[in-house]
Amino acid sequence: MRHTISVLVENKFGVLARISTLFAARGFNIDSLAVGETEDPAISRMTIVVKGDDSILEQVTKQLNKLVDVIKVNDFKDIDYVERGLALVKISVPKSGRAEIFKIAGVFRARIVDVSQGSLTAEVTGGEDKIESFIEAVASYGIKEVCRTGIIAMSRGNK
Amino acid sequence: MRHTISVLVENKFGVLARISTLFAARGFNIDSLAVGETEDPAISRMTIVVKGDDSILEQVTKQLNKLVDVIKVNDFKDIDYVERGLALVKISVPKSGRAEIFKIAGVFRARIVDVSQGSLTAEVTGGEDKIESFIEAVASYGIKEVCRTGIIAMSRGNK
Repeated sequence: MRHTISVLVENKFGVLARISTLFAARGFNIDSLAVGETEDPAISRMTIVVKGDDSILEQVTKQLNKLVDVIKVNDFKDIDYVERGLALVKISVPKSGRAEIFKIAGVFRARIVDVSQGSLTAEVTGGEDKIESFIEAVASYGIKEVCRTGIIAMSRGNK
Repeated sequence: MRHTISVLVENKFGVLARISTLFAARGFNIDSLAVGETEDPAISRMTIVVKGDDSILEQVTKQLNKLVDVIKVNDFKDIDYVERGLALVKISVPKSGRAEIFKIAGVFRARIVDVSQGSLTAEVTGGEDKIESFIEAVASYGIKEVCRTGIIAMSRGNK
């Protein structure tokens, strides 16, 4: 099963290494990872998306909670939440084809962030599915490069 | 100095642990990290933002290049590039104050992704500075939660 886990950690060096080693030791491949500061610069939040066995993941979560630098671990499995990621997609397109890309970008509410002689770069945000649909929609033009952030998640409502 | 480094790696488990251990061993704290799939699902791209001594970072880069699962390392220091990240910001605000938040969101081209009784959640994209400016702009209302992806980067133009 696919899990989105949020881990609040002290912003110190070595923490990321310890956490990623813990997942690797259990044979989990991290599909997507986002690490960034929170409202408190001394604290970082890691959002980890993994696919794998529920019971093993539960063990990993318990072990995470035991790490000194880990403040809180949240599994979004039973929570209503918003999930977002960002991708930059550089599309190979001659000047004559630009209008079409702009049109597709409009449908996906993607923004064009760079234009050059033979290419356009678009920024698209959304859940994994939306980002993948956009990439598919422009794939026939020729994709030069895709760069994606990990997915981040936040509970809905006033919690 | 602040460096944005992009590392193309084989999408296998343990790679992230090896790379983050390498940075930690040299005393580098990773400010921001984004890991996501590329146009080829067998290959992931890590975008790492670190601050630190240039000569030590050069050594780290050389060591990265020696890792079996590392395909390519790019330091964006002499390249013209686009940098983007995403943040979800949950703002504490009564119904009567919503209009003001919507206005601020408009200025930053942020999108409201969730509305509840006492809070709004906004999605904002941009470079680090823009994201921080947005957070500052809404801070006086009371921030309940901030969740940020790492920064990703892509060279400008047709390269």
